[in-house]
Amino acid sequence: RGVKKIAVIPGDGIGPEIMNEAVKVLRQVEQKFGYSFEFQFAMAGGGAIDQVGVPLPEETLSLCKSADAVLLGAVGGPKWDHNPPELRPEKALLGLRKELGLYANLRPVTLFDGMEDRSTLRPEVIAGVDLIVVRELTGGIYFGEKKRTKTEEGEIASDLLIYHEYEIERIVRLSFEMAMKRKKKLTSVDKANVLESSRLWRSVVERVAEEYPEVTVSHMLVDNCAMQIVRRPADFDVIVTENMFGDILSDEAAVITGSIGMLPSASLGQGNSGLYEPIHGSAPDIAGQKIANPSAMILSAAMLLRYSFDDEEAAQAVEKAVKAVIKAGHCTPDLAASGQKAVSTEEFGDLVAEQI
Amino acid sequence: RGVKKIAVIPGDGIGPEIMNEAVKVLRQVEQKFGYSFEFQFAMAGGGAIDQVGVPLPEETLSLCKSADAVLLGAVGGPKWDHNPPELRPEKALLGLRKELGLYANLRPVTLFDGMEDRSTLRPEVIAGVDLIVVRELTGGIYFGEKKRTKTEEGEIASDLLIYHEYEIERIVRLSFEMAMKRKKKLTSVDKANVLESSRLWRSVVERVAEEYPEVTVSHMLVDNCAMQIVRRPADFDVIVTENMFGDILSDEAAVITGSIGMLPSASLGQGNSGLYEPIHGSAPDIAGQKIANPSAMILSAAMLLRYSFDDEEAAQAVEKAVKAVIKAGHCTPDLAASGQKAVSTEEFGDLVAEQI
Ligand SMILES: CC(C)[C@H](C(=O)O)[C@@H](O)C(=O)O
Ligand SMILES: CC(C)[C@H](C(=O)O)[C@@H](O)C(=O)O
Repeated sequence: RGVKKIAVIPGDGIGPEIMNEAVKVLRQVEQKFGYSFEFQFAMAGGGAIDQVGVPLPEETLSLCKSADAVLLGAVGGPKWDHNPPELRPEKALLGLRKELGLYANLRPVTLFDGMEDRSTLRPEVIAGVDLIVVRELTGGIYFGEKKRTKTEEGEIASDLLIYHEYEIERIVRLSFEMAMKRKKKLTSVDKANVLESSRLWRSVVERVAEEYPEVTVSHMLVDNCAMQIVRRPADFDVIVTENMFGDILSDEAAVITGSIGMLPSASLGQGNSGLYEPIHGSAPDIAGQKIANPSAMILSAAMLLRYSFDDEEAAQAVEKAVKAVIKAGHCTPDLAASGQKAVSTEEFGDLVAEQI
Repeated sequence: RGVKKIAVIPGDGIGPEIMNEAVKVLRQVEQKFGYSFEFQFAMAGGGAIDQVGVPLPEETLSLCKSADAVLLGAVGGPKWDHNPPELRPEKALLGLRKELGLYANLRPVTLFDGMEDRSTLRPEVIAGVDLIVVRELTGGIYFGEKKRTKTEEGEIASDLLIYHEYEIERIVRLSFEMAMKRKKKLTSVDKANVLESSRLWRSVVERVAEEYPEVTVSHMLVDNCAMQIVRRPADFDVIVTENMFGDILSDEAAVITGSIGMLPSASLGQGNSGLYEPIHGSAPDIAGQKIANPSAMILSAAMLLRYSFDDEEAAQAVEKAVKAVIKAGHCTPDLAASGQKAVSTEEFGDLVAEQI
């Protein structure tokens, strides 16, 4: 399987701790599957602001550009919350997405065996949940023009939600391809009864749909979708939506199985490269305590194997290993049932690596 | 309590059926509390499109403007779903909000006694839920400039999210006042890490907060809020947010107690007038079958008494009546437990009226 360069950005808070475990697991994959991984560490986020004065240093960016894939822990923390916009840790994420052209954010949400009781939803409602949110990641209101004007009657602020047809088309196409490999059910989410950009979105979905007659497509308004995710999450297969709606809905969906510490994500662009990171944040409150759950980070590494190295076999080996460890009753404190003995971040990583 | 003019817009689908029951209940209130109500019926939505060619006829608008309050059933249906934007039933709602200056949408979400098992969330999670979403209703991306351009590379569409400081200030102030009358806890929801309009929003909240030292204020990012509503809904008191976030979050919040057929809303402006409508839609699939649940409509009438007629006593009498009927085991088919005998829309309205 050869030599692969992986850019590694541990980031802030629990980032470094969970990243250690993901690298440990990838080292095991390297041996078992005959890879030669070159891990290249770089900084971004709050740590980078503190050390070099910007959230996304040039070296980090060029390293990511030349790597075969990027693994990212988490960025941010209260320390930088009051920084001006350009000096916030999140800028690193937004910059990486834009500069690497990562227009598709994939967030699978599945229920893990033995974790049915961690959710705030009833077990029968989340049984069988297996959905993926495909979120457009480099367009929309995140990157449209922002303005701030002072007038005599006070200030005015604005953000432009703007989409080009080609931006919509490529993400929609990717979603149809994804649906073809899954249950062939696509829900496109918009607010076409109010937004012009949503009306364009919907028309593109309808046009592309003609090329995929096997896929059952439905359009759902974003407010309705926010309800249906709570009411009948198991009915969804692929959900595709624009950047801001995707931000909100994917977080909502992430929480329904009660295992946000378990959920990975992939951000893909045109080539094979991609950026892989957990859904959860940098959790500064528990950083350094050896209790962070590295599952989402490790599962993000599995997605990296799947999408950037096109290696379904190795990806599944990692996923199975995580599931096996959990099924065997090992877990970090966040998931431990009362009375259950929890393992440390490091021990959890060891157990997963052993399983591979 | 005197003469009051109430504009009544039954609308589409189940609108007319549930409106009958609300009017029935208000007739009872009229007698018991010494009012003299003048109900003035008007059309809007799909029916108006069919009959006079526009979703919001001039007569309807002027009638609403001169009324002491407006009661609205629901508008919309598949029949008009493919109409061009200007000829959609929803335009009636958007038009009424804008023309009547109804900048504050209030959506209380509470758990009704005896309905703990209708939710997809666990009973212990929804126990004690008593929150209110205050949504800005006449600004933001709903009313900002919309554009559609054709280029050689395809079309471009955009929507402008724009807020003036005074628009933010009045809704924020209203939310603080609301919090003062409740548990003194205000959660302001924005996306300040990405949007300029959210940064202005947040600064206004911080400024106004100084006038309400007794209120505990927190800022929450919209994606996080979408999670917390599912994780710990009982922790919220007043949630205030901009138009689009409010649309999404209030629908999500409406579903957590499993009783969306029960939830009313009020849209308020500067004077005492206001528009009152259920959260749920026009449900064309069950229209005319005498099975629609009129609770949300009746409870909207209660909100009308509270906010437009400043009559807490009469409002509570209506709310207590609805609760008593449900507690006594009567409900429409949507809420009937298996084996339970359901009552019709009309019977439910009769039962509520009798209780007053
Ligand atoms: C940190 C923030 C800018 C980011 C986003 O909104 O995209 C985050 O919420 C995410 O979903 O990755
Ligand atoms: C029908 C639609 C335009 C409306 C909105 O988005 O405001 C509805 O969803 C609501 O919340 O009242």
